[in-house]
Amino acid sequence: MTWLETSTENCTVQRAVDLFGDRWSLLVLRDAMNGVRRFEDFRRHVGLSEAVLSDRLRKLVAAGILTTVPYREPGSRTRHEYRLTEKGWDLWPVIIALKQWGDRWAADPDGPPLDVRHRDCGAPVEAVVRCTAGHGPLAPREARARTTAAALPLA
Amino acid sequence: MTWLETSTENCTVQRAVDLFGDRWSLLVLRDAMNGVRRFEDFRRHVGLSEAVLSDRLRKLVAAGILTTVPYREPGSRTRHEYRLTEKGWDLWPVIIALKQWGDRWAADPDGPPLDVRHRDCGAPVEAVVRCTAGHGPLAPREARARTTAAALPLA
Repeated sequence: MTWLETSTENCTVQRAVDLFGDRWSLLVLRDAMNGVRRFEDFRRHVGLSEAVLSDRLRKLVAAGILTTVPYREPGSRTRHEYRLTEKGWDLWPVIIALKQWGDRWAADPDGPPLDVRHRDCGAPVEAVVRCTAGHGPLAPREARARTTAAALPLA
Repeated sequence: MTWLETSTENCTVQRAVDLFGDRWSLLVLRDAMNGVRRFEDFRRHVGLSEAVLSDRLRKLVAAGILTTVPYREPGSRTRHEYRLTEKGWDLWPVIIALKQWGDRWAADPDGPPLDVRHRDCGAPVEAVVRCTAGHGPLAPREARARTTAAALPLA
């Protein structure tokens, strides 16, 4: 079966995109990875409405990407903050790859506002696709995509 | 300045997300990376309307991510097919990282329908964040994000 003959029903890129592949969810995830945890901080920093933020946070919690943890400020009722789960942190390569592309192709002349480096040595980080047998980073033409036995025919 | 105090106006993740960070654009890019080039093939395979597909293709071409190349089938008028530019192929790590997450967290029990391997050795590929000084793949806690001189204050 060629890719064009397959159903996208069980495509795992599509499954991922359906869970968080929209503008606001991606920006909320970016902020969560930069330490933002509280509703009001997401709202103010990402710059979105309460209604949309509530909706996206609820979906990300339902997907197991964020989890809620109660906290209480003196004199206030208990609220919840949002933290990335293991499943959520596993999206780090997605966000770093987005940033890398944006840094290269869409930054202002004075560069991006955020710099991500290896904590120990201070060198910049990079997102790469590599061979799991140790043959290093790969260009797209060095890879081959094949449909598997799980591929379903396009209706 | 902390991340929360910065404006997201020149955030390069946001710039990237604004260009293609929506469900349909991401799925069109997935298909383009799997060799889909023609309007009707995108429409049928991705499963979206002509109007939405036209809009997304136009935006991806305007962004320099896709380029149009004329072709002509016998007996038909000249049409255009869509091919990824260098800027477009530079999104490969984003799509592979999305697939890797979906393969791990959202696949059916019989696995994903597509398998991407190193052409030469046949080993699976993986998307990783690594240190550019050669200290290998990094976990999020091994990296540190800092605002740069280009960071702008949040209004």
